[in-house]
Amino acid sequence: MREVHTPDAPGHTGPSPQAVESGGWLYISALFGNDPHSSVLPSEPRDEAARIFANLDAILAAAGGNRTDVVRVGIFMRALQRDRPVFNEVWQEYFGEHRPTRYAVEVTDFGRPGENRRFMVEAVAHIGV
Amino acid sequence: MREVHTPDAPGHTGPSPQAVESGGWLYISALFGNDPHSSVLPSEPRDEAARIFANLDAILAAAGGNRTDVVRVGIFMRALQRDRPVFNEVWQEYFGEHRPTRYAVEVTDFGRPGENRRFMVEAVAHIGV
Amino acid sequence: MREVHTPDAPGHTGPSPQAVESGGWLYISALFGNDPHSSVLPSEPRDEAARIFANLDAILAAAGGNRTDVVRVGIFMRALQRDRPVFNEVWQEYFGEHRPTRYAVEVTDFGRPGENRRFMVEAVAHIGV
Repeated sequence: MREVHTPDAPGHTGPSPQAVESGGWLYISALFGNDPHSSVLPSEPRDEAARIFANLDAILAAAGGNRTDVVRVGIFMRALQRDRPVFNEVWQEYFGEHRPTRYAVEVTDFGRPGENRRFMVEAVAHIGV
Repeated sequence: MREVHTPDAPGHTGPSPQAVESGGWLYISALFGNDPHSSVLPSEPRDEAARIFANLDAILAAAGGNRTDVVRVGIFMRALQRDRPVFNEVWQEYFGEHRPTRYAVEVTDFGRPGENRRFMVEAVAHIGV
Repeated sequence: MREVHTPDAPGHTGPSPQAVESGGWLYISALFGNDPHSSVLPSEPRDEAARIFANLDAILAAAGGNRTDVVRVGIFMRALQRDRPVFNEVWQEYFGEHRPTRYAVEVTDFGRPGENRRFMVEAVAHIGV
């Protein structure tokens, strides 16, 4: 099992790596839309979603892969019906012709206390060996 | 990565394929109990659960697999204690002797606004190469 | 697909095995902190979390693996901000230098009615073939 690290995506305060690879499969820990350098969470939902995908790109690159390797994305939102439309717009700009599987649910909380993040993502990619 | 399509399971309004296969592993997007042709959601919980598994069967067949390839199912419900008993009955009728791993949680929302679906499922199958 | 069974982790009342292995990948069903023999749920959060990892160890051993094979853990809590600190302490004692990916969300319910479990975990491990 290989740990993946990049300064261009946020680190975790807890005991988690950004991603690990085993047998060509890359598992990515909970991804948030914070800026990797300032830790600031964008105030606009579009910017928060876009930052998640920029962070995902950085992790994929650090692992030796890219966005076309993404196979499945789990999406967690605090207000699904309110925020899904903008999330989907950003998703399509990011993935373009590449179409990973996904599921999206609304849950009551995730992330650090009081930050009120709108989006959290977990992802699996197949980058080969 | 190979996209899987079948007219015998509902399509997604958003940017998602029904399933993708990579390296023999099949990831299935959020599955709902809507009729694939009319899009109607059954009013009875048993029928909604049964339709989910019929949709799953159609996707597995389109990918070149079948229900005995299913390895893991994530189950999301809006009212877990109310609806799990009937879901489990339908599950056992569907899977029979085959026993995938599973987890089930209650979440506050999923699916399209106002549809009040009871069940959503995400699944992983190993169909080989 | 190979089912994994051990008397040293709780069984499921529903139609689920504790884990299955296919192609070297081990998927573990919803894991709770109940005692495998008495079924009792510890009253203290630390003990409940510790029991989850003891149960995980028993399943990994029965599958022919161990904790360093764990690649991804999904964590569900009923009160994320209240219970995550103690969960993370137990996590670090258990995993030590091994760092799987993870995500954690708060959801409104899981497990059997009325038991008020604090934690549920689903996990994926790569134990090789």
